[in-house]
Amino acid sequence: MPLSEFDLIQRYFTPATPAREDVIHGVGDDGAVLHVPIGMDLVASVDTLVSGVHFFADVDPAALGYKALAVNLSDMAAMGAEPAWATLALTLPTVDETWLAAFSRGFFELAEHYGVQLVGGDTCRGPLTVSVQMHGFIPQGAALRRSGAMPGDLIYVTGTFGDAGLALQALQQHQALPELHAHYLIDRLERPSPRVFEGLALRGIASAAIDISDGLAADLGHILAASGVGATLEIERLPVSPAFVAVAQDAALGADHCWQLPLSAGDDYELCFTVPADKQAKVEQVFARFGCGAARIGVIESQPGLRCKLANGEMLTPASSGYQHFT
Amino acid sequence: MPLSEFDLIQRYFTPATPAREDVIHGVGDDGAVLHVPIGMDLVASVDTLVSGVHFFADVDPAALGYKALAVNLSDMAAMGAEPAWATLALTLPTVDETWLAAFSRGFFELAEHYGVQLVGGDTCRGPLTVSVQMHGFIPQGAALRRSGAMPGDLIYVTGTFGDAGLALQALQQHQALPELHAHYLIDRLERPSPRVFEGLALRGIASAAIDISDGLAADLGHILAASGVGATLEIERLPVSPAFVAVAQDAALGADHCWQLPLSAGDDYELCFTVPADKQAKVEQVFARFGCGAARIGVIESQPGLRCKLANGEMLTPASSGYQHFT
Repeated sequence: MPLSEFDLIQRYFTPATPAREDVIHGVGDDGAVLHVPIGMDLVASVDTLVSGVHFFADVDPAALGYKALAVNLSDMAAMGAEPAWATLALTLPTVDETWLAAFSRGFFELAEHYGVQLVGGDTCRGPLTVSVQMHGFIPQGAALRRSGAMPGDLIYVTGTFGDAGLALQALQQHQALPELHAHYLIDRLERPSPRVFEGLALRGIASAAIDISDGLAADLGHILAASGVGATLEIERLPVSPAFVAVAQDAALGADHCWQLPLSAGDDYELCFTVPADKQAKVEQVFARFGCGAARIGVIESQPGLRCKLANGEMLTPASSGYQHFT
Repeated sequence: MPLSEFDLIQRYFTPATPAREDVIHGVGDDGAVLHVPIGMDLVASVDTLVSGVHFFADVDPAALGYKALAVNLSDMAAMGAEPAWATLALTLPTVDETWLAAFSRGFFELAEHYGVQLVGGDTCRGPLTVSVQMHGFIPQGAALRRSGAMPGDLIYVTGTFGDAGLALQALQQHQALPELHAHYLIDRLERPSPRVFEGLALRGIASAAIDISDGLAADLGHILAASGVGATLEIERLPVSPAFVAVAQDAALGADHCWQLPLSAGDDYELCFTVPADKQAKVEQVFARFGCGAARIGVIESQPGLRCKLANGEMLTPASSGYQHFT
């Protein structure tokens, strides 16, 4: 027997969510009533994943539930915000209870890890679309923005680049990844790690920050545009994983192409941030405790534009300016 | 030349939005930074409209933009909240600049009326889907909820019922509405009036409230379930518009069927609320200043269930329990 909208929310989404003291009234009314702590501002973001655009229709539903929350947590991380509450607008072609149970499990696995409570939602019939809105807190005046980078600031990134892009390329071209690396690379695409604690640690240190959803070149470009500056990257400093190196070599990509994926592919959900040069030691001290690390990859300059320099002195032109939905 | 995602937001959605002092940073970063006034709680809701489910694919885009915000403002009204900020997740099959300009015009026409600022959004390619998240304020402890109705409380509704249902029925069955009434009835379907100021006026007066999106019987049913009570309605007290009466008579609907639409059709976006009997005079005094009025249609009782009584003593069974997306 098909479930009503109300039953869906009740059965799969209400009981599993963590309970926070700042949620006065959660799911079950026309709106949630929420308490923002005194001294804190609210940070709000929204990200939508559409079947056939952001994921394959046959994606593991648990991975989809996980990723739908992860990409929004990544926005909180990029702002230096502490995540608190989510709402979920879920459009489903049909009610498949096995699918829903798995989706919900993936979503709440991550929600629980970060103490995020689901406080509202909307389910309806239609093409598979997942839209998550995230809310978090930031001390007044402490938000990490795109517009604060200054000439001389150092450019850092967390984690490694190109893993998700390599996995996506293999899936799109129906190429098998080597068994040794397939799990890691697919996981990097389907279950990105939002750098929430890293973002919190950057309050008061970073002059600008963004998360990498559309590719490093494109997203760093947003920092440059918002800050009215340019940058030079030392391409070989871009951190790549052992799996990426092994597979990229195996695929006999040219040396040039090897750097295009880390530079231009999306879906890594790492952070890119800038810091004043006198905070270099502080960044490295802070990141010593984070597994993902932080690599210094370049410098902000007053000359507009993004310059990508290879160690041999040659310049590399990023293959694309990132994923654009309408171009 | 197609527009990029960034251009879309910049061109159609950023400049048109009202500027509020409590928006520290709006569109253009990974998240908006927002200030909730001290003493206020945040109210958050989300509602999605899907092409072919909630609206016809060839709907007037200005009406769609208007309605996407209106249904969310209606949630704020039902909570007694003062609307403040919206985010918009827009999934579009293609970029049609004429369509986007009209959609944006409809959205901001209403946003401006209520001083709502668009603070974030996400546009992507896919089947036409509009998901709006609304944020508002409520003094701590003052939210109108579904769970506060008590036996003896009087049941009120704003506005008139069945107009939107009649218009939808005509559109679905490709029947022309009489020219004299067509504009009014279609407008009631496509441009519902969220009862925001009425909801604000109900703080401290209403014991429970809900907005009517799925039909009066279904939505009042949520109040009854959440409050653990029942109700009897005097059906002939349900307010209907002159246009509804004229068209319903013209269509030679049976007397019984005449009440089914006002009772069961959705999309009216009026408020249904309950008040303790000793506040009857207060309600009528407050609503004297609102054009939509408020009609007393029944009473809350301890016996569970919804009883719909006709003046001749007969009981009417609601035709359906409201629109259910998955049943």
